[in-house]
Amino acid sequence: MQVLDTVKDLRNWVLSTKESGQSIGLVPTMGFLHDGHLALVESAKSENDLVVMSIFVNPAQFGPNEDFDRYPRDFDRDRLLAQQAGVDIIFAPSVEEMYPRNSQITMGAGTLADVLCGKSRPGHFDGVLKVVTKLFHLVQPNIAYFGQKDAQQLAIIESLVRDFDFPLHIRRIETIREPDGLAKSSRNVYLSETERAEAPKLYQALQQGVAAARDGKDPIPEMTRFIESETSGKIDYIKLLSYPDLTDSPNGQAILALAVQFQKARLIDNIIFNSKEN
Amino acid sequence: MQVLDTVKDLRNWVLSTKESGQSIGLVPTMGFLHDGHLALVESAKSENDLVVMSIFVNPAQFGPNEDFDRYPRDFDRDRLLAQQAGVDIIFAPSVEEMYPRNSQITMGAGTLADVLCGKSRPGHFDGVLKVVTKLFHLVQPNIAYFGQKDAQQLAIIESLVRDFDFPLHIRRIETIREPDGLAKSSRNVYLSETERAEAPKLYQALQQGVAAARDGKDPIPEMTRFIESETSGKIDYIKLLSYPDLTDSPNGQAILALAVQFQKARLIDNIIFNSKEN
Repeated sequence: MQVLDTVKDLRNWVLSTKESGQSIGLVPTMGFLHDGHLALVESAKSENDLVVMSIFVNPAQFGPNEDFDRYPRDFDRDRLLAQQAGVDIIFAPSVEEMYPRNSQITMGAGTLADVLCGKSRPGHFDGVLKVVTKLFHLVQPNIAYFGQKDAQQLAIIESLVRDFDFPLHIRRIETIREPDGLAKSSRNVYLSETERAEAPKLYQALQQGVAAARDGKDPIPEMTRFIESETSGKIDYIKLLSYPDLTDSPNGQAILALAVQFQKARLIDNIIFNSKEN
Repeated sequence: MQVLDTVKDLRNWVLSTKESGQSIGLVPTMGFLHDGHLALVESAKSENDLVVMSIFVNPAQFGPNEDFDRYPRDFDRDRLLAQQAGVDIIFAPSVEEMYPRNSQITMGAGTLADVLCGKSRPGHFDGVLKVVTKLFHLVQPNIAYFGQKDAQQLAIIESLVRDFDFPLHIRRIETIREPDGLAKSSRNVYLSETERAEAPKLYQALQQGVAAARDGKDPIPEMTRFIESETSGKIDYIKLLSYPDLTDSPNGQAILALAVQFQKARLIDNIIFNSKEN
C-alpha cells in the first residue's frame, strides 16, 4: 500500500493506472475508520482492480460552529486498518493541498439540501459537492462507494453524477451496525457511557416507524415520544420522505430518517424501504 | 468523420478511444461555424490524435428574452466545414438528450459573473458551466479549446477547471477577425448593412483604448465618445479589468472589453494585454 499526499503524485499514479487499463474503486472517507468504511473497501475490492481510499477531513463541509477542529483523527491506526483491508492507495492530502486558493466557482445542492441535515447544516452539502467533485476528477474512479448511513449525502451525490454526466458509477452500501443496532460512526466516540447505552434506541425507533408507515400510519408522533422518553438526546428531525428525490410524498421507495443531538455527538440514522410493500 | 447524437454512442466512442490510448481534443461550439471555430479545430488537430467538435445550442445559457429560438443554425453547412477542417467526431445532441430531466445540482460563477456580460445576462454563465462540465465528462478530452473573444467565459472555465481539478487542459485561442478587424461571430449575420460597416469601429476603439491605458490614461471616456459618434450601437459596457480574475485593479495582465447592442445583434470584443508594457 502506498500513501500519497500530493495531487501531483496522485495524478501520476492515476495516469499510469489508466494507461495499464486497470479499474479503480474509490472509497472517500474523513478517516477514523470503522467497520462501515471497511465494508466499502470490501465492496470496492470485489469490483475493481485497485482501491483508492481518500482520508481528508474536509473543512468546506463543516459549519463555523461545527466540530472540524475536534473531529476525531488517528492516521496511524487508519493506515493499518486500510492496509489490512487491502487498500492499494491512501490519498491523504493536507487542507492546503486540496484547497491551494480560494475557489470562484460554486456548487449547490438545490432543494435536496432544504430538508433533513441540510436544514440545520447550511452549506454542508455544498462543501460535500466540492470535495467529492474534486476527488472524482483527481482519482477518476470507475466506481465510488458511499454508505447509506449518510443517505442525504448519497442522494445528492447520485444527483451530481446524473446531472453532470460524471463517467463513473455510485454504489450505495448498507449501514454497518454495532451488535445492539447502533449505526457505526466516527462520531460515536463522543458519546458518554449513558448516551452510548441509549443510542441503540434510535434504530429501534426507526424499525418501529417503518412498520407503522407500512401499516399506513404516520410514524413520527410515536417515534418522537419513544426517543424523548428513552434517551437524553434532543431530536433535530424525524422525517419520512421519498427516496432519492427527498420530497414530502413517499409513494414507493421511501426513507425514514432522524438526527438526534447528544451532549457532544449529533447522531444520524435511516432506513430506506418500499412504502408500498408490507 | 462520424456524427453522433446520443450520449450513449459518444460514451462508447470515448471509451474505445481511451482504451486505444489516443488523445482527444474538444472544440465546444453552438454551431453556425466561422473561421474562429475552425482556428480552434486547427489547434486541436495539431495537439491531439482525434478531435471532437460539439455542436449544441445550449438553452441553459440563454435568458428568457434572449435569442435562443432565433440563434442561427445550419447543420448541413457545419458538417461540411467540420469535415473539411478535419474534425473526427461531431457530437450534436438534441436538447432532450443533453437535459433529459430537471437537474438538482447547480453551479455558479461567483464574483466572476458580476461584471462584463454577466451583469446584463444573469444566469448565462451558470448555464455555460453546466454544459461545459457535462461536455468535459462526456468527451473526457485531454485539451479543450476556447476562443478569446468570449474572454469572460474563458476566465470562468479556467477557474472551473482549476477549482475542481478537472483532468484536462484549456487552450485559449486568439480572436479571428474579418479583414477590417471585426471579430468573427455567428451573430454577425444579424447586422444590417449599415451596422456591418460600423462594426469594425469597436475593434478600433479597443486598439486606441489599449494604447491609452498603456500611457497610464483612463481609456473609457474617449472610447465611449468614439463608439457613440461612429456607430449606431448602444454601449452595454466598456471595462478595463485584471485578467483572468476580472477585478477592478489591472496591474499586469489586463483585459479591455466591450459589448455593444445593435438592432438585432449584441457584439462583444476584447483585447488582453500587459498593462505594464509599453
